[in-house]
Amino acid sequence: MRQTIIVIFSGGLDSTVLLHKLKNEGHEVLALSIDYGQRHRYELTQAARICARLGIEHRTADLSALKPLLSGSSQTSDDQPVPHGHYAEESMKLTVVPNRNMLMMAVAGAWAISRKAHGIGYAAHAGDHAIYPDCREEFVQALDTALGLADWHPVYILRPFMNMTKADIVREGHRLGAPLEMTYSCYEGVPEIHCGKCGTCVERREAFEIAQVKDFTNYVQT
Amino acid sequence: MRQTIIVIFSGGLDSTVLLHKLKNEGHEVLALSIDYGQRHRYELTQAARICARLGIEHRTADLSALKPLLSGSSQTSDDQPVPHGHYAEESMKLTVVPNRNMLMMAVAGAWAISRKAHGIGYAAHAGDHAIYPDCREEFVQALDTALGLADWHPVYILRPFMNMTKADIVREGHRLGAPLEMTYSCYEGVPEIHCGKCGTCVERREAFEIAQVKDFTNYVQT
Repeated sequence: MRQTIIVIFSGGLDSTVLLHKLKNEGHEVLALSIDYGQRHRYELTQAARICARLGIEHRTADLSALKPLLSGSSQTSDDQPVPHGHYAEESMKLTVVPNRNMLMMAVAGAWAISRKAHGIGYAAHAGDHAIYPDCREEFVQALDTALGLADWHPVYILRPFMNMTKADIVREGHRLGAPLEMTYSCYEGVPEIHCGKCGTCVERREAFEIAQVKDFTNYVQT
Repeated sequence: MRQTIIVIFSGGLDSTVLLHKLKNEGHEVLALSIDYGQRHRYELTQAARICARLGIEHRTADLSALKPLLSGSSQTSDDQPVPHGHYAEESMKLTVVPNRNMLMMAVAGAWAISRKAHGIGYAAHAGDHAIYPDCREEFVQALDTALGLADWHPVYILRPFMNMTKADIVREGHRLGAPLEMTYSCYEGVPEIHCGKCGTCVERREAFEIAQVKDFTNYVQT
């Protein structure tokens, strides 16, 4: 059945593939990006470009006023440098933005309820779980229950990548013809180039390698 | 044990009594108000005054940019008049703001995590359940589970009024010496006066009567 789905859309690789997957399945897809004052806000520019290319309605919710409440993360605190290295390292926990995913889903839920949409699309995948507590299935499940009860119009969370690796997502995106080269995911946030050293860059690169898909990303470090 | 609790604080009667109750129990209490572009934004002025009087740290998170996503409610849509009458009436559903309470708890959760607070104080009571789906215990329970999983630092939701009536809360506030006359809850949002006709005014008046506590609220209609 054709449904209306609001995808939480960062402009990164995972949510771009999700957008394409759901559109490809015939759903009405809307995209929601969140400006929370993130260091890597260039992702928002790319998010808008990708949606324009796909002809998808896109909104960016401005939560940047919350930045003072989100301290402690390298992504929302200017004095906290972005850690370099592999996601599996302890230092990567510095990149966790407090309660970010619940915030995103609460905003998406609000829009979904007022728009009478069926669901929210959420691109968390298996590789996220180790670092990001709010990418774990138990968390998403509890929020899914809450969103089913938050209004007389219930909304659910679609999360088809939960048991997939990032390499699986690259493969899926490639198969669907998603513009992977337009996606942006570097934590350093320098426009148009990926640093190649931060956790997301290392993970991104590795995923393309494992998937054996040619990587057109513009990295500083080769 | 003394805990740090962030109270979701509207400046209305219920959350004012909760603030006093938790402070009285010896907890460190912080207050969070949310500006979501509400018609009754005068509550935010009163919220600040009440916190100043109590010497409580108070923040107002500006989510007013979300107003376009929250359409459909009389409290966020200028062209939708505030329904008058008793809360039990079907027309009162017009006052429901889409996913408002999840939004508030998501922001409170973010602040609580970054501040390493123990919990969030939420003043929903038994009378709210009929109209507001996001005041139901099942909803709060699901969010409580989610907040316990959203970060490596778990946060829980304190909700001591869940089985109390508004009259019980008036009685409790009176006993604690809370400044009930400073609280503001009118949906019409006219500064300093309560209309006496909207759902919250009717409910407020009734609660004072049932509790047999003198009501110093300045109503337009006597």
